[in-house]
Amino acid sequence: MTLLGAVAGVAEVDELLDDPALVQSMVTAEIALLRACERADLVPAGTADAAAAAVTGHRFDPAALGAAATSAGNPVVPLVKELLTLVPDDARAWLHHGATSQDILDTALMLRAAVVVDVELSFLAAARDAAAALADRHRATRQVGRTLGQHAVPTTFGVTAAGWAVGLDAARRELEAVRSSLAVQLGGAAGTLGVYGPAGPAVVTAFAEELGLAAPALPWHTDRSRIRSLASALGGAVMAAGKVATDVVALSASEVGEVAEGGGAGHGGSSAMPHKRNPVTSVLVRGAAVRAPGLVSTLHAAGLQEHQRATGSWHAEWQPLLELLSLAGGAATRISDVLAGLEVDADRMAETLAAARPAVMAEHLTAALKPRLGRDEAQRVVGAAMTAGDDAAVVAAVLDSVAADAAGTGAGLGAAELHQALDPGATLTACGAIVDSALQSVTHPDVAR
Amino acid sequence: MTLLGAVAGVAEVDELLDDPALVQSMVTAEIALLRACERADLVPAGTADAAAAAVTGHRFDPAALGAAATSAGNPVVPLVKELLTLVPDDARAWLHHGATSQDILDTALMLRAAVVVDVELSFLAAARDAAAALADRHRATRQVGRTLGQHAVPTTFGVTAAGWAVGLDAARRELEAVRSSLAVQLGGAAGTLGVYGPAGPAVVTAFAEELGLAAPALPWHTDRSRIRSLASALGGAVMAAGKVATDVVALSASEVGEVAEGGGAGHGGSSAMPHKRNPVTSVLVRGAAVRAPGLVSTLHAAGLQEHQRATGSWHAEWQPLLELLSLAGGAATRISDVLAGLEVDADRMAETLAAARPAVMAEHLTAALKPRLGRDEAQRVVGAAMTAGDDAAVVAAVLDSVAADAAGTGAGLGAAELHQALDPGATLTACGAIVDSALQSVTHPDVAR
Amino acid sequence: MTLLGAVAGVAEVDELLDDPALVQSMVTAEIALLRACERADLVPAGTADAAAAAVTGHRFDPAALGAAATSAGNPVVPLVKELLTLVPDDARAWLHHGATSQDILDTALMLRAAVVVDVELSFLAAARDAAAALADRHRATRQVGRTLGQHAVPTTFGVTAAGWAVGLDAARRELEAVRSSLAVQLGGAAGTLGVYGPAGPAVVTAFAEELGLAAPALPWHTDRSRIRSLASALGGAVMAAGKVATDVVALSASEVGEVAEGGGAGHGGSSAMPHKRNPVTSVLVRGAAVRAPGLVSTLHAAGLQEHQRATGSWHAEWQPLLELLSLAGGAATRISDVLAGLEVDADRMAETLAAARPAVMAEHLTAALKPRLGRDEAQRVVGAAMTAGDDAAVVAAVLDSVAADAAGTGAGLGAAELHQALDPGATLTACGAIVDSALQSVTHPDVAR
Amino acid sequence: MTLLGAVAGVAEVDELLDDPALVQSMVTAEIALLRACERADLVPAGTADAAAAAVTGHRFDPAALGAAATSAGNPVVPLVKELLTLVPDDARAWLHHGATSQDILDTALMLRAAVVVDVELSFLAAARDAAAALADRHRATRQVGRTLGQHAVPTTFGVTAAGWAVGLDAARRELEAVRSSLAVQLGGAAGTLGVYGPAGPAVVTAFAEELGLAAPALPWHTDRSRIRSLASALGGAVMAAGKVATDVVALSASEVGEVAEGGGAGHGGSSAMPHKRNPVTSVLVRGAAVRAPGLVSTLHAAGLQEHQRATGSWHAEWQPLLELLSLAGGAATRISDVLAGLEVDADRMAETLAAARPAVMAEHLTAALKPRLGRDEAQRVVGAAMTAGDDAAVVAAVLDSVAADAAGTGAGLGAAELHQALDPGATLTACGAIVDSALQSVTHPDVAR
Repeated sequence: MTLLGAVAGVAEVDELLDDPALVQSMVTAEIALLRACERADLVPAGTADAAAAAVTGHRFDPAALGAAATSAGNPVVPLVKELLTLVPDDARAWLHHGATSQDILDTALMLRAAVVVDVELSFLAAARDAAAALADRHRATRQVGRTLGQHAVPTTFGVTAAGWAVGLDAARRELEAVRSSLAVQLGGAAGTLGVYGPAGPAVVTAFAEELGLAAPALPWHTDRSRIRSLASALGGAVMAAGKVATDVVALSASEVGEVAEGGGAGHGGSSAMPHKRNPVTSVLVRGAAVRAPGLVSTLHAAGLQEHQRATGSWHAEWQPLLELLSLAGGAATRISDVLAGLEVDADRMAETLAAARPAVMAEHLTAALKPRLGRDEAQRVVGAAMTAGDDAAVVAAVLDSVAADAAGTGAGLGAAELHQALDPGATLTACGAIVDSALQSVTHPDVAR
Repeated sequence: MTLLGAVAGVAEVDELLDDPALVQSMVTAEIALLRACERADLVPAGTADAAAAAVTGHRFDPAALGAAATSAGNPVVPLVKELLTLVPDDARAWLHHGATSQDILDTALMLRAAVVVDVELSFLAAARDAAAALADRHRATRQVGRTLGQHAVPTTFGVTAAGWAVGLDAARRELEAVRSSLAVQLGGAAGTLGVYGPAGPAVVTAFAEELGLAAPALPWHTDRSRIRSLASALGGAVMAAGKVATDVVALSASEVGEVAEGGGAGHGGSSAMPHKRNPVTSVLVRGAAVRAPGLVSTLHAAGLQEHQRATGSWHAEWQPLLELLSLAGGAATRISDVLAGLEVDADRMAETLAAARPAVMAEHLTAALKPRLGRDEAQRVVGAAMTAGDDAAVVAAVLDSVAADAAGTGAGLGAAELHQALDPGATLTACGAIVDSALQSVTHPDVAR
Repeated sequence: MTLLGAVAGVAEVDELLDDPALVQSMVTAEIALLRACERADLVPAGTADAAAAAVTGHRFDPAALGAAATSAGNPVVPLVKELLTLVPDDARAWLHHGATSQDILDTALMLRAAVVVDVELSFLAAARDAAAALADRHRATRQVGRTLGQHAVPTTFGVTAAGWAVGLDAARRELEAVRSSLAVQLGGAAGTLGVYGPAGPAVVTAFAEELGLAAPALPWHTDRSRIRSLASALGGAVMAAGKVATDVVALSASEVGEVAEGGGAGHGGSSAMPHKRNPVTSVLVRGAAVRAPGLVSTLHAAGLQEHQRATGSWHAEWQPLLELLSLAGGAATRISDVLAGLEVDADRMAETLAAARPAVMAEHLTAALKPRLGRDEAQRVVGAAMTAGDDAAVVAAVLDSVAADAAGTGAGLGAAELHQALDPGATLTACGAIVDSALQSVTHPDVAR
Repeated sequence: MTLLGAVAGVAEVDELLDDPALVQSMVTAEIALLRACERADLVPAGTADAAAAAVTGHRFDPAALGAAATSAGNPVVPLVKELLTLVPDDARAWLHHGATSQDILDTALMLRAAVVVDVELSFLAAARDAAAALADRHRATRQVGRTLGQHAVPTTFGVTAAGWAVGLDAARRELEAVRSSLAVQLGGAAGTLGVYGPAGPAVVTAFAEELGLAAPALPWHTDRSRIRSLASALGGAVMAAGKVATDVVALSASEVGEVAEGGGAGHGGSSAMPHKRNPVTSVLVRGAAVRAPGLVSTLHAAGLQEHQRATGSWHAEWQPLLELLSLAGGAATRISDVLAGLEVDADRMAETLAAARPAVMAEHLTAALKPRLGRDEAQRVVGAAMTAGDDAAVVAAVLDSVAADAAGTGAGLGAAELHQALDPGATLTACGAIVDSALQSVTHPDVAR
């Protein structure tokens, strides 16, 4: 589905997952199996080379294989049939030797997953680095913090971006851990490696070496742990990107205008409404993020596979897995682009924060007064004073209120102290350390510290 | 994805949903909009005809439109650009008049959904009829009922199949109700029909008439009720088919062998294991059923769309909706095939039931004794007697046990009465009526009653 | 879970779903079954009354029943055991006569669902009416339309609220349709009604009459269509409320401030940040809306139930169904409250729209110029002019641009015409009709028209 | 919900998650925050001890806190209000110092999660060990492999159980990795630690130390990576248990009867059907497994949290997280019980395999003949011979067929060789090594090798 799917995936990844690539990986798995059997002396030397030479350059018809898959239950059956027409006579007896269809298709999907995940790890690293660079650059850029959509207390855009970096790196690390678990599948009809005799385990090891994947402890035809973990990690990558996209969309709303997607004139534009500058890339990332959880749940649900081969749940995995791989690629590279090109309007941030003063300093002022006035009195005094107007008015109101208090706990309270407590800077003293801690945790090599 | 997707969908439906069909529906919507505007005297007469003539036969490149959709956010923007190069100069000012991209894409998807749902309603009706025919034919075919995988009490295969018919018809009726709600989308950028002036509502009505879809009460850009209801109903159709497939898989297990998928020699066969007869079609239906719930959840989740246009959730709908339409088509026609060709081994059913006797009649025997012996004594007597052996041995054991009872509540109990209570027929007297009730409820025209 | 669950549900509904209510419904079902059997002359007259009298006032211990359910697989087994200690000796033989545990628990859940759905239908009607009243009151209240978070073109708040009313009513209607399908469950161990003999169907009819639920065409132990439809409809209700809540949260953001939740001083307040006015009720509704899709998917997925009793999927339904019933109650009544008390700041809406002028009229101006200048020239002229400044400056810029055009297609274009095309009112002429259409579609009796 | 929830969770875990435990963890977090502030010299020494002493033994009313949470948006607000009534006057100013509600609730949930996960890790280890013990004990117990429900080729029950052990251990390891990421939450209203001034990071470190949780790189109010990873791992644990339960249910079906749940007389029994022995514990595990994916998807979906505090998605996490924690506990301990007590009927396995011969050896025979006869001829010969009858008949048929072949490629083929190829042992030579590999991979200390 290239018409509507292109907004979710990205060509660089999707072409690694298209039908020809899948067929090629299935063929690669069959040839690698021949090599592995040769290494175990189960198949005459030279068979794999001869077979490989015979199929090289052959154009398979994925649609025809797909159609034939309907009656066979999977596309490996018709593929093997076609390969048998291509390989030399000597190789015909050995092709697909000891394998079951699931061995080949699972292995092919793992081959595709490995290649794609490697690309996506680099996308995520790039996105993390771009977020970290923003955090570093804007460590002192003040911004109003927003909770439940309302102005709350000051923060810095550096802290905001540092959070993005940490989230993206957490997703990257989870995916990296899963990457090493991607393994070949080989077991034969019931997972016993029966046709290979005692050489079975050696064939598995050789098969894995040929393909650069892990060798599993045992066949995993109906133990879908690695599919589930892969799905969870891919979903996590999409959602980490989606969190950033959500913030970018929110911060670029017309009324907020604190950031804008880069991309120059025309990006996110509308010919009918020339004033518009839509955060279209972030919107596409969010679109992926709305889809990922359902796909993750399907790949979890498909884990209830009975006996030595499932009656439906294996088939249910194929498309959701490919879609999650595609979505993660699209989301990761798009959010990397968004972050790398993000236009940050520090002036607008400052203006919004200024306009939100002194209300957004109420909490800090209360905290400053609590030791002297006690909790309730501090809240009462501040609550009453906040409506007075600007900082000076609030300070005056607080001083009046305190002076009128018979208890005299506020004695000695000075205007300077109050002014300082109303300054956003007073509440941002830890932000530099927070950003440093975040940058360090993501081990960003480009930020000197 | 034709290689791995073909086992989920079915060509007859999937070709109604492929990229060329989608593009064509988008073009159809644009032309219909011109006609609707003409009917409202907003556009010069003849514009639609001229535009339609100019685009007829033009080959669009869905991949190119998809790629262009990435920067625009949707494929309508590049499509309109391409259409503008095709239509006569006079029509250029009027193409896409007053519309927003979502108007065209939503409408195109509704056009596709309507065509596909009509096909699927016929699939579901055929499946229901096939199940009903099985129920009618096997109304007296005895079978052991199985609860938690264990033999429980007798039933008939007619009742089993009647349940399938009812489930399939419930899904069909829900989908039929949703079919009538499929509506055009038209509102312009913010749903105000602003460019049309006061003629707006008339344009919507005309647009709907041109396309044979419902006219909505108002634009539904961010009210996704009908998408949600459509998704729920499609998911329901897949699951109703999946329930049947689950039973067919279970009943065709090697150890059970009460039914087999038809299809003749070769269907579900394995060249490596010539003895196998896999219920492969039912397995594919179950594969669809494992996928549907995740897609339904995504289309529900995508309903949180803000303001006048969503920031991601609309984009999230496209592929899941197409997939659910495809899955419902594949599942419905496949289960129809399975039911129409199902091979029922009534002898095997009878043998299994016979072998499960007399244990499976314990509940009925207990119920027969309860009025006389009381609940606890009846359970005790039957529990003890059931291990005695065959019917005769059980009858003897019960009579002994009752005779030994000092209370004498079992006085007069006769062997004939006990033998009757151990006969499966005694517990199946309502099954004919149950089947009739079911068949009547699905208004199956081919079954005389 | 009352500590964290209270923010999702609402006491008025949750108390209808609590453990004592569930146990009571199970008892009610058992008594009704006795009555139904009496009506079919299967049980001695008076048994039901005697049993009912004996259990009335008895306090069951739901925790103990739940604990016992673990080994039995469901709480009906220990409940029946407890009931047997309560009822008169004569009734002991007849209690639970011919029933299986699932008959009682499914029926009890349907009894609870029916009561709860009735309440929720009234909540949804109230919410719809409140939205409709807002639409009616604000049919002329201008507001800027927002697409992808950006100011797009003008709309009215009346149209916005009308969309809410239509969405809520669509959910209400879907739930209403499902309400009538809620049926008793009765089939005995394998769905054959075997213990009742030929009287089976009559017992089902009587059972349904006693309980005020529908009589099903046949037992639905493993045909979960009605659970699935109920789940879909409940999920739809939550999402319809969630759409409104999403808009309220967005419109009440500090930077937007066009609406605020009512509730008076203190509602949504923060003692630490006295300036805050959080849209807390809408936030809770959105919280429910994030949860509903996963629950819907579980109840769809649980539909794959084999043979005459599922091996897990039935058990999987219980809590998700109760949670969806609870979420729908909480979401519906909360959104009704939000809508009824919504504070609409029409002045702020007007200011925002004014500040967004003339940019938001670009599309309309282009549409006005297209017939004369052609599509490209109109877009070029408007695109260039929009940056000029206010309406007057834009008008001047357009006139200059047109005058400079050698082709002269703009001859005769006047400033008055341009000024009118830049007036938001020009693009809102259909809004009254749109609101009327929406109100009519939801058949709101309180709005005269 | 103790009535219907008890079958999903298990008391040992659920009581760690009940309302009093949650409230206690919230209180523990508040006290630990006081201690952390003391350690940073922000709060007078002794405040924490005094506060702790004052609240010890106080009985909170979770239902009242839950009800109050509705207007505040969370239960921390009313809890703090109640705590303020308890603590000494000196402590009142410092309670909840610098914290936001989410700091306390997230931290409390992490405290609960940590305790529960520790228990569940031991459950999973026990389940893995029990599966490994089965694999070790039954390494030579032959069983027929089943694919798509059909007898395929031989395997051993040892391999089957080894797969369970590997799957359970993979889940355990994923959960173990997540365990170490469970961190305190502390950031104040907008994640800046503003009230603490420069001491902020030190307060976080001390807070984490006090509670035995990790210190996060920065506040994670809207970066929900760790919630998502925890959810994925918990879901994985449930599904790994569910895979085992699925096999146990399938293998204990009446027609299969190869295993049975232990538990002695009465376990899984039915008073109405005394012959039944339901695999009820496995059914409950499967029930949990049908529910987990939907909950995982909700916790993934809830990751789209905007700005410094979400507008609903945080609230959406609470119950699904608690439910997943509960489900994982119930599933893990139940499957551990099932595996520890599993009754394996090796004779029945042998009988079934014997009855499935020689058909299940067709693949192996074909593989044996391929080198000599070529692929097609081997398949043809074997396909024709398999219907002949028992081993001897098949051998004779093969020899006849080969002798009749003019090509003579089968020359020298002997009956002994064929008999050996038809012996299940011939296809099981790698099974010992497979089991060893699996046991080694799960580092099972009790199995010597």
